[in-house]
Amino acid sequence: MASLTDIGLAAAINILSAFAFFLAFAVLRLQPINDRVYFPKWYLKGVRSSPTHSGTFVRKFVNLDLRSYLRFLGWMPAALKMPEPELIDHAGLDSAVYLRIYLIGLKIFIPIAILAFAVLVPVNWTNATLENSNVEYSDIDKLSISNIPKRSQRFWAHLVMAYIFSFWTCYVLLKEYEIIASMRLHFLASEKRRPDQFTVLVQNVPPDPDESVSELVEHFFLVNHRDHYLTHQVVYNANKLAKLVKEKKQMQNWLDYYQLKYDRNPSKRPTAKTGFLGLYGKKVDAIEFYTSEVERLSKKEATEHEKVKKDPKSIMPVAFVSFRTRWGAAVCAQTQQTRNPTLWLTKWAPEPRDVYWQNLAIPFVSLTVRRLIIGVAFFFLTFFFMIPIAFVQSLANIEGIEKAVPFLKPIIDLHIIKSFIQGFLPGIALKIFLIFLPTILMLMSKFEGFISLSALERRSASKYYLFLLVNVFLGSIIAGTAFQQLHTFIHQSANEIPKTIGVSIPMKATFFISYIMVDGWAGIAGEILRLKPLIIYHLKNFFLVKTEKDREQAMDPGSIEFGSSEPQIQLYFLLGLVYAVVTPFLLPFIIVFFVLAYAVFRHQIINVYNQEYESGAAFWPDVHGRIITALIISQLLLLGLLSTKEAAQSTPFLIALPILTIWFHRFCKSRYEPAFVKYPLQEAMMKDTLERAKEPNLDLKAYLINAYIHPVFKDGEEDDSFAVGDEREYDNVLVPTKRQSRRSTPAHSKYNGSSSPSLPDAIQEQL
Amino acid sequence: MASLTDIGLAAAINILSAFAFFLAFAVLRLQPINDRVYFPKWYLKGVRSSPTHSGTFVRKFVNLDLRSYLRFLGWMPAALKMPEPELIDHAGLDSAVYLRIYLIGLKIFIPIAILAFAVLVPVNWTNATLENSNVEYSDIDKLSISNIPKRSQRFWAHLVMAYIFSFWTCYVLLKEYEIIASMRLHFLASEKRRPDQFTVLVQNVPPDPDESVSELVEHFFLVNHRDHYLTHQVVYNANKLAKLVKEKKQMQNWLDYYQLKYDRNPSKRPTAKTGFLGLYGKKVDAIEFYTSEVERLSKKEATEHEKVKKDPKSIMPVAFVSFRTRWGAAVCAQTQQTRNPTLWLTKWAPEPRDVYWQNLAIPFVSLTVRRLIIGVAFFFLTFFFMIPIAFVQSLANIEGIEKAVPFLKPIIDLHIIKSFIQGFLPGIALKIFLIFLPTILMLMSKFEGFISLSALERRSASKYYLFLLVNVFLGSIIAGTAFQQLHTFIHQSANEIPKTIGVSIPMKATFFISYIMVDGWAGIAGEILRLKPLIIYHLKNFFLVKTEKDREQAMDPGSIEFGSSEPQIQLYFLLGLVYAVVTPFLLPFIIVFFVLAYAVFRHQIINVYNQEYESGAAFWPDVHGRIITALIISQLLLLGLLSTKEAAQSTPFLIALPILTIWFHRFCKSRYEPAFVKYPLQEAMMKDTLERAKEPNLDLKAYLINAYIHPVFKDGEEDDSFAVGDEREYDNVLVPTKRQSRRSTPAHSKYNGSSSPSLPDAIQEQL
Repeated sequence: MASLTDIGLAAAINILSAFAFFLAFAVLRLQPINDRVYFPKWYLKGVRSSPTHSGTFVRKFVNLDLRSYLRFLGWMPAALKMPEPELIDHAGLDSAVYLRIYLIGLKIFIPIAILAFAVLVPVNWTNATLENSNVEYSDIDKLSISNIPKRSQRFWAHLVMAYIFSFWTCYVLLKEYEIIASMRLHFLASEKRRPDQFTVLVQNVPPDPDESVSELVEHFFLVNHRDHYLTHQVVYNANKLAKLVKEKKQMQNWLDYYQLKYDRNPSKRPTAKTGFLGLYGKKVDAIEFYTSEVERLSKKEATEHEKVKKDPKSIMPVAFVSFRTRWGAAVCAQTQQTRNPTLWLTKWAPEPRDVYWQNLAIPFVSLTVRRLIIGVAFFFLTFFFMIPIAFVQSLANIEGIEKAVPFLKPIIDLHIIKSFIQGFLPGIALKIFLIFLPTILMLMSKFEGFISLSALERRSASKYYLFLLVNVFLGSIIAGTAFQQLHTFIHQSANEIPKTIGVSIPMKATFFISYIMVDGWAGIAGEILRLKPLIIYHLKNFFLVKTEKDREQAMDPGSIEFGSSEPQIQLYFLLGLVYAVVTPFLLPFIIVFFVLAYAVFRHQIINVYNQEYESGAAFWPDVHGRIITALIISQLLLLGLLSTKEAAQSTPFLIALPILTIWFHRFCKSRYEPAFVKYPLQEAMMKDTLERAKEPNLDLKAYLINAYIHPVFKDGEEDDSFAVGDEREYDNVLVPTKRQSRRSTPAHSKYNGSSSPSLPDAIQEQL
Repeated sequence: MASLTDIGLAAAINILSAFAFFLAFAVLRLQPINDRVYFPKWYLKGVRSSPTHSGTFVRKFVNLDLRSYLRFLGWMPAALKMPEPELIDHAGLDSAVYLRIYLIGLKIFIPIAILAFAVLVPVNWTNATLENSNVEYSDIDKLSISNIPKRSQRFWAHLVMAYIFSFWTCYVLLKEYEIIASMRLHFLASEKRRPDQFTVLVQNVPPDPDESVSELVEHFFLVNHRDHYLTHQVVYNANKLAKLVKEKKQMQNWLDYYQLKYDRNPSKRPTAKTGFLGLYGKKVDAIEFYTSEVERLSKKEATEHEKVKKDPKSIMPVAFVSFRTRWGAAVCAQTQQTRNPTLWLTKWAPEPRDVYWQNLAIPFVSLTVRRLIIGVAFFFLTFFFMIPIAFVQSLANIEGIEKAVPFLKPIIDLHIIKSFIQGFLPGIALKIFLIFLPTILMLMSKFEGFISLSALERRSASKYYLFLLVNVFLGSIIAGTAFQQLHTFIHQSANEIPKTIGVSIPMKATFFISYIMVDGWAGIAGEILRLKPLIIYHLKNFFLVKTEKDREQAMDPGSIEFGSSEPQIQLYFLLGLVYAVVTPFLLPFIIVFFVLAYAVFRHQIINVYNQEYESGAAFWPDVHGRIITALIISQLLLLGLLSTKEAAQSTPFLIALPILTIWFHRFCKSRYEPAFVKYPLQEAMMKDTLERAKEPNLDLKAYLINAYIHPVFKDGEEDDSFAVGDEREYDNVLVPTKRQSRRSTPAHSKYNGSSSPSLPDAIQEQL
């Protein structure tokens, strides 16, 4: 067990490394050449274009203004300065509310830490249980509950504190839920006109022998929503077409690249190999080859386009139905349409860029089957994920490698290499698995059939949280794999489980403190450096960027990635709540994490991230629910711990705590959750009335007619006459929409006319 | 353990007693004097009036037609003859669907029994485990799974059967859910115009300083449901007034009685005592006294009436809002109205006679608190109900009684009386508790704040089911109180619990067989005799009936009492499913119960019961859910039992079964439950369109204006001009409504003009 000095040393190391990251960031971000890595958000907003200094050439790459280096932590106050309403305006409500998760961490844990240090630390410290016992202990343990003798009356202090901490946490959660619900409603109310306000997604339109899907939808809604129905758009199964378009675009890029190469060096016709990635295969004239490829794909695309548009089978039994008023849409989204609740399913349409098109055609019945399958699969993934990894590890042993590639045998047999492989390979399979885990979870969620990106992310987050809870939290406390734990738990009585875990909790405090420092402090500081996007951007810039639009693509702002980052924050809530009563010494480390993370993510959200969609903080009920879960876990574990301490007088009083917490959760759920699920009719009516007064002659039908077109068709139509209508439409939409549509359609070239030449062109000129 | 002969004997006794009940019923029901006890439903429908034989005087009381006694079981085919659509028309959908619960029992258990006897009984019988062991066993045990040796391959047969039985049960449930959902929708679609089709109950109207509740409601709906709002009715807190009205009615009855007495015997003015029940107090002239009482109460009532109508504080923040169309009401009921989901809560209004007026004013916030309180209270009631009963028992001992009433000492000291008290008193507290349990559970449900009688009954049924499950099923299997069980379970591991119970299950088969015979067979046969209503009717008829309207009241048809009878049926489902694989010998007993109960309840529903409300089988999801629960319990217990039999090869295959069952339940829930909760817009629109075509000039407002008036105000207005409109209104409503409104308002006198004189009058004449 680590002593206070050990912890201090580790903290120093981690603080230093975090500092180093910040220093590196401060230097790197000031270099104009990195501008697009560290401030992509501003480029996307059109506020910033390529570096504007008109000074010397060097100045375009390196910042020589030494004074600017002095304020190397200046980004922090700058990041904190932007007021919240402006932030919402700048980055959307999702991002602003995401930041509030860190703030809640501070709101919960700072008062708890102060109280815990004022009351519990003295109570724990002034005992001599550990000194008189013959077990090994550290100074940290002297501050923890372990230092209290069995059957002590002092446990009343912990009991009272557990109540105070729980009530405080619930109070903060309640206030926060209230604030965020009203922020969401305010956001929805003050939003500009958006297609999804008027639109409902209708799934599972029943087949009809006499009418097409489109006719059927129109007739149905003309009858049943007579006064409100406006128009609708059917959904085509264009997955194959989308693939063709993507392929063609790639070929077009290569063609552009070789064309450029040939233009600059006309003496030599560029050649290419036809095989995979141009690595092998027949050598051909590159320009000719890609021209023919593009032509071939264009023809194929045109055929497929026609086929999709004409073949009635490519129309899915799904439609986006738009209404004259928001009121009409709100009514349709919240009601059941027909006797059979699995037909004509209506729900609020996600905003156009949030739609996950592939999942739109999954029939209702298969949904339950899919969820069952994924439920079982996720159970096995969580509890048995070590099995396939162990299998891979057993394959990737030295004998196996020597057998597969016998010519490497002499090298492998070298002592250093051998020990490296033996030491490193087994770990790498696990590491790779953990890196790909969020992706795997996302694939699982996609298979479950959610139809919007935001729902997919929320679902992945739930899964990831469960995985972390079982494999990181419980897995660290009780040594052994999750499967072994499962085995233990099944064979233990229901109230033995909290005891088993509760007892080991105080002993793991130092482990979790170092976990917080490595994963939390240094990890967060590493986040701001954006090492991976930095390297990739420069590599792309150097080797691949041929045109301005390629540079546009090379600039990958990324996004918050709710599905993997939120569950990780939740782990800190869990640790904080569990250890608040047991080992309060852990709390300051968590507070430092929340402070750092808040500053870093606020900076990133302002300057870097570009959200792909805006769900209006629809994830909040999940966040709230997970903090409540952490609270209940902490209460049960304390119950288990105290019962092993034989504090028979005080322990029974703890039983009421989880019951009250569950009740509080149910209260919050009924009070605030509807704000995240339903759209109140009063709000809809108010917006409708206001709009009618402001723009009595609005042509809503023209506005909505193409809003929910599959992105593939949108691409095609941007070249022809539809484009104008399309653009005009989008001008009414929040700015990021533009970015999104552009992202999937790099044919845009708005930034081509920027005043200064882009970097690689400048390099070319200089050469 | 009972042998086959013992069981046979018990069966014979129970069959004989059931037969005796049927015989008694056959004789009693043929006597014209009992006609109102055994056929009240027909009186209420107006089809039957007092006995119509114009023969001799004796014939009016006793049936002398001996031939009619020969067909003494003739009621059975008669009860089964009425086709279901006619039954729905006659007794409502609730009753018809309630009968289907028994039918499901037959549908599930007859094929299961046949299969079990064909496969499992031979498999079990052809072993010699019990013969070779030295434990006591009976012939029944030889037919059960106990006769299979450990680690036998024969357990595969039980495993396969468990799968087949579960799939069959699920199949029957699925089909039944489908049928009942469509029956409900058909019922709703073919219903005549009813006020609740157009009406939504709005709760928690926020207080407003400037407007009254009525104005506020009107303005709110005029704005937010502009095209659909028609009218509304506020709800008065008239609980005090209702009490006064009831009191006055009692006094009026006494006045009538004495008036009649005086008229017949003018020589003597009747006197009465003013104390409780006329048992003590000052002797006064009865007619004068009651006249003054009625006058006093009339004045008081008028004052209170004025007060309620004028005092704004007596208006609750609740209103019944009616719409122009069913579509408008369906929309309002299914949507959220304002930002704050706890204000302007809308839900489908229960039909007027289903409203539980007292609960209409409970604010939303207190609801969650109330549910928490009742949840905790119910937990203690279930697990600790023995404690207060033991306390009462300890009070009610002989010493206590002797102390309280010393003059009884000599009597109590008599040997017979003493042993009677000692043997009987401890049991009586428990018996009284069990008799009052459904009432206690109903009171708890009322405290939870449900606003319709049907919801209250459903809620009570859930509670009662849990109570029976814990205290009858588990309590019988594991000897000891529920509290002791709880203690055991908490200290056992999660997968030890099914083992503990599973092992004791085969041993309890004979106990449950005799339980089924006593409680099921004889109990059901006793039900048809209606001994309590029979005695009470004749007592009332002899001592209290003064007027025809009193006789009307003395005739108590009763109703199904879903809250207590449905959970008892569920116990048979549970027993059947649990023992289907373990001891198939129990199944025929259950089948006999279902056959008997079906016939008896069909007869009662046709001839006796009069439902107080019609919920359109809204209870079905609960029934379905409880059968699924029973199925899962049976699967888990089998799992536990097999694992103690060390059938390691086959047991793991059982794990999938509960998972599949839960999944099946969720599928059914999403597929069929909405039919019981929501009203689809298409249906509403169809009914609206049809009605508009049929009755274009319908004055809906006049129809709805008084539909949701507190019954107390309706009474008062029946005497004045409103009455006509009121009656006209009710002619459109299902027949039982009439009965209901009459029941609470015995001032009706439609039946007074019946052709033959009522019995007591006839007696008077003869005297």
